[in-house]
Amino acid sequence: MTGLCKINGHTCKNAATVTPNDFFFAALANPCPINNNTLGIAVTLGNVEKVPGFNTLDIYVARIDYAHGGINPPHLHPRVFEVIFVLEGEIEVGFITTANVLMAKQINKGEVFVFPKGLLHYQKNIGKGPAVVIAAFNSQLARTQSVTASLFSATPALPDNVLAKAFHIATPEVENIKSRFAPSS
Amino acid sequence: MTGLCKINGHTCKNAATVTPNDFFFAALANPCPINNNTLGIAVTLGNVEKVPGFNTLDIYVARIDYAHGGINPPHLHPRVFEVIFVLEGEIEVGFITTANVLMAKQINKGEVFVFPKGLLHYQKNIGKGPAVVIAAFNSQLARTQSVTASLFSATPALPDNVLAKAFHIATPEVENIKSRFAPSS
Amino acid sequence: MTGLCKINGHTCKNAATVTPNDFFFAALANPCPINNNTLGIAVTLGNVEKVPGFNTLDIYVARIDYAHGGINPPHLHPRVFEVIFVLEGEIEVGFITTANVLMAKQINKGEVFVFPKGLLHYQKNIGKGPAVVIAAFNSQLARTQSVTASLFSATPALPDNVLAKAFHIATPEVENIKSRFAPSS
Amino acid sequence: MTGLCKINGHTCKNAATVTPNDFFFAALANPCPINNNTLGIAVTLGNVEKVPGFNTLDIYVARIDYAHGGINPPHLHPRVFEVIFVLEGEIEVGFITTANVLMAKQINKGEVFVFPKGLLHYQKNIGKGPAVVIAAFNSQLARTQSVTASLFSATPALPDNVLAKAFHIATPEVENIKSRFAPSS
Amino acid sequence: MTGLCKINGHTCKNAATVTPNDFFFAALANPCPINNNTLGIAVTLGNVEKVPGFNTLDIYVARIDYAHGGINPPHLHPRVFEVIFVLEGEIEVGFITTANVLMAKQINKGEVFVFPKGLLHYQKNIGKGPAVVIAAFNSQLARTQSVTASLFSATPALPDNVLAKAFHIATPEVENIKSRFAPSS
Amino acid sequence: MTGLCKINGHTCKNAATVTPNDFFFAALANPCPINNNTLGIAVTLGNVEKVPGFNTLDIYVARIDYAHGGINPPHLHPRVFEVIFVLEGEIEVGFITTANVLMAKQINKGEVFVFPKGLLHYQKNIGKGPAVVIAAFNSQLARTQSVTASLFSATPALPDNVLAKAFHIATPEVENIKSRFAPSS
Repeated sequence: MTGLCKINGHTCKNAATVTPNDFFFAALANPCPINNNTLGIAVTLGNVEKVPGFNTLDIYVARIDYAHGGINPPHLHPRVFEVIFVLEGEIEVGFITTANVLMAKQINKGEVFVFPKGLLHYQKNIGKGPAVVIAAFNSQLARTQSVTASLFSATPALPDNVLAKAFHIATPEVENIKSRFAPSS
Repeated sequence: MTGLCKINGHTCKNAATVTPNDFFFAALANPCPINNNTLGIAVTLGNVEKVPGFNTLDIYVARIDYAHGGINPPHLHPRVFEVIFVLEGEIEVGFITTANVLMAKQINKGEVFVFPKGLLHYQKNIGKGPAVVIAAFNSQLARTQSVTASLFSATPALPDNVLAKAFHIATPEVENIKSRFAPSS
Repeated sequence: MTGLCKINGHTCKNAATVTPNDFFFAALANPCPINNNTLGIAVTLGNVEKVPGFNTLDIYVARIDYAHGGINPPHLHPRVFEVIFVLEGEIEVGFITTANVLMAKQINKGEVFVFPKGLLHYQKNIGKGPAVVIAAFNSQLARTQSVTASLFSATPALPDNVLAKAFHIATPEVENIKSRFAPSS
Repeated sequence: MTGLCKINGHTCKNAATVTPNDFFFAALANPCPINNNTLGIAVTLGNVEKVPGFNTLDIYVARIDYAHGGINPPHLHPRVFEVIFVLEGEIEVGFITTANVLMAKQINKGEVFVFPKGLLHYQKNIGKGPAVVIAAFNSQLARTQSVTASLFSATPALPDNVLAKAFHIATPEVENIKSRFAPSS
Repeated sequence: MTGLCKINGHTCKNAATVTPNDFFFAALANPCPINNNTLGIAVTLGNVEKVPGFNTLDIYVARIDYAHGGINPPHLHPRVFEVIFVLEGEIEVGFITTANVLMAKQINKGEVFVFPKGLLHYQKNIGKGPAVVIAAFNSQLARTQSVTASLFSATPALPDNVLAKAFHIATPEVENIKSRFAPSS
Repeated sequence: MTGLCKINGHTCKNAATVTPNDFFFAALANPCPINNNTLGIAVTLGNVEKVPGFNTLDIYVARIDYAHGGINPPHLHPRVFEVIFVLEGEIEVGFITTANVLMAKQINKGEVFVFPKGLLHYQKNIGKGPAVVIAAFNSQLARTQSVTASLFSATPALPDNVLAKAFHIATPEVENIKSRFAPSS
């Protein structure tokens, strides 16, 4: 493969310049500081933009740090599944099927759980201290749709009456919830 | 291909018994009565269970009827995109990207819009009368995740504190919204 | 995804410049004038060249207008299937299996039919007035092989003796048929 | 993989009973007698039904024997490409693009030519004696659509007026050509 | 999906009987005792046979325990890549490209390395104590080809002269190496 | 498709400049001279770099010439299977499964054998004269991993102690074998 070609939209390095570091990622080794956000989580991401060797391999990895009581709120990854390994602590995990069944379970240090492709899921730290999971996804550059933020803080905003009907609430309640979301940046 | 084999989990008919009707679907021709539901929509579905010839072709079709003001609330199809053609009326359509941008537009009779794979989207009848769209999806048997129902009426229920944190609301507000959803069946 | 990359050979827009119009196509709303051609059909095509949002989604759409008695002659789409919805009128559709069985059927307004990948198929307006179908295909930029034109008006021309043997006719008959095709442009 | 499962609709052998013969095919070694057909060709086929080891590998092979002047008439393989190697003799090969361009060439013993997926193509023995090619296809069980037979001898028959319009000939000419095809069996 | 169908050769559970445990795997939490083998490693495997929810998700996971100085000898996974996360210790990892370049590196606790599909690779514990990695692979049931065992202890045995030529050694040396491998079972 | 785009990292020719020669490869017609190497084989390769029309078709072809007693030593093609046709002579072929079973067989002129994806395999000329095979692979540009060269002559070199443990031999024996391999270039 010669110099400047692109595969999947990412530059394909000249074979002569590839090094072992192109297949290596160090940043999962360290806790990510958890900002004073209300959710109590922090995510460190290793995708093809950071690990060139992931290109064409349909993989990326992440580390999620949870403060005590931290929650990774309901979200999904379009087209992609996620498998997690608990590095530390005790967490509750759950995903919701298209038949509206919640598949939830407590998982502990050293245990593994898989969230099927494109389904809503969440995690919650239910232990006494912090928790950490290592995650892998089957895509080199998948994205996340955080559904509550998508619904209440998209730009431009979703129409109030769509949200009111969808949640069976009144428009002022919709406005009220919208006001609690920081504008997306 | 002999008699009782299965492809993709669906029975593969003996070639000698295949007829043109296996590639045919009539039910989109007629409006589906809209029950007195609060959303004001009705969906008629033609997937591989109804059209054997769709097997292995990655396609299914649907007709959506909207009452005046009817809303197809925010939902998504895991793994699958949707393209719609407006058969009648004027509707507002929108989907939300993973960068939290709303892509919304009014589309009218005869126009086409595509919702990318696995992203949250909605439609709303904004015309003076009923509206109808014909939809196609790239899977022979895709499912729908209706996110508001998933979050507030799954069985078993999602924990209140997960929803409270995700929506930045208090637990009684969560309970209040849950109470307005009919139990899923 | 940064600015000028290409995916599938098509320019991938900078995410910041994407608009709802990239997922929208208006041209199927209007009848396409049917030239005084002998077949009596006109095709309006919406593929990735016209709808950037189709890129990577394996979809394109079309509208086919048929004059009274109009025929879409036997043709095929290499690698691609086609599903049609009758917008207006009554048409006869058919495809031929590799076991040489004709699967033909009359379909009417609002009905759906699917033509499997890469198989010869045709449509004929058998109603009293004009007819219209909306079609969807599982590729963002599929092409059509119109087999009679391919055989009798390719450039350069197929050898007469190949056609003579294939059709069990004499060379002058081949020349005669060739003469009736306009040169391909 | 346990005993009686099926993959791709074909029985998956118990691993303990697999032998080297499952990956072996002998029948291409010998010329296939050419019946007194008008085309002057004979095809020997090695697909997954004859070579169990081809299952899941997307391959099958064939040997085509051509009498002096023998023609493999215009045909196509839905979804599949074909690559040929000339074992003996001199043949003319050609395929027609969707832009109606004929790509034709003489190829001789030891040479290779590829026919892209799903496009019409033909071969003709143009040497002084018999010719032989070995072919490979990217599917374990692909089929052939012989377009002239499909158009003029399908069961049930294509309507005369569809063929008349497609070939720009009169109905009696259509009937005349149909009469020269043996009924398909 | 109804009861007894199979997908990918594995039983597809009736949706009504699926539980969260089908997406869960506990066995990576505990060290696997390392037998007195000469290599000093032990592998714990979680594939679709143990985690039904992995079916169709193209994933399986493993834990590899290394004794002090333990070596996972050169091997490969046909069709599959492997990404590892160091849970404990310091290991040297390497893979060999098809251009015969060794890509090797020391990786420590918390770091990640990926081995591309189908390439020879090895790991060696170079720390002062035991080491552990968690691995993920992009297939629900991939296998391993341990090349040295494949070459010197297959059943039936590879011919001595093939191995002699391949390793540039004499036949008695081949016999000598073969004698040191336990018969495969 | 316009001028300078790339598909799969390879230049996609402007359709107007494509000729039949882009689908043609002549070099398999002639024996490749066998250098005085110790293995007694020579390989002629036709991949997408030599046959532009192979692009996107997942195919390449090769001719392997074997001197009397010539051996194609154990090797594999990551991600790719290989099917061979014996053009001349008698060869022994074998591949090793991941269950460490050798599937070996003598095959003669005109016979076909398939080596599954990514598995170790070899061929040996066991006839009285030279032998020739024609091979096809399901990738337009697959590579070969020659495992003995990979293990003993990679740059940089694999650690002696890894090889010693893997082959159950002592370090001086490893050094001895390494010394017999020419440095890779």
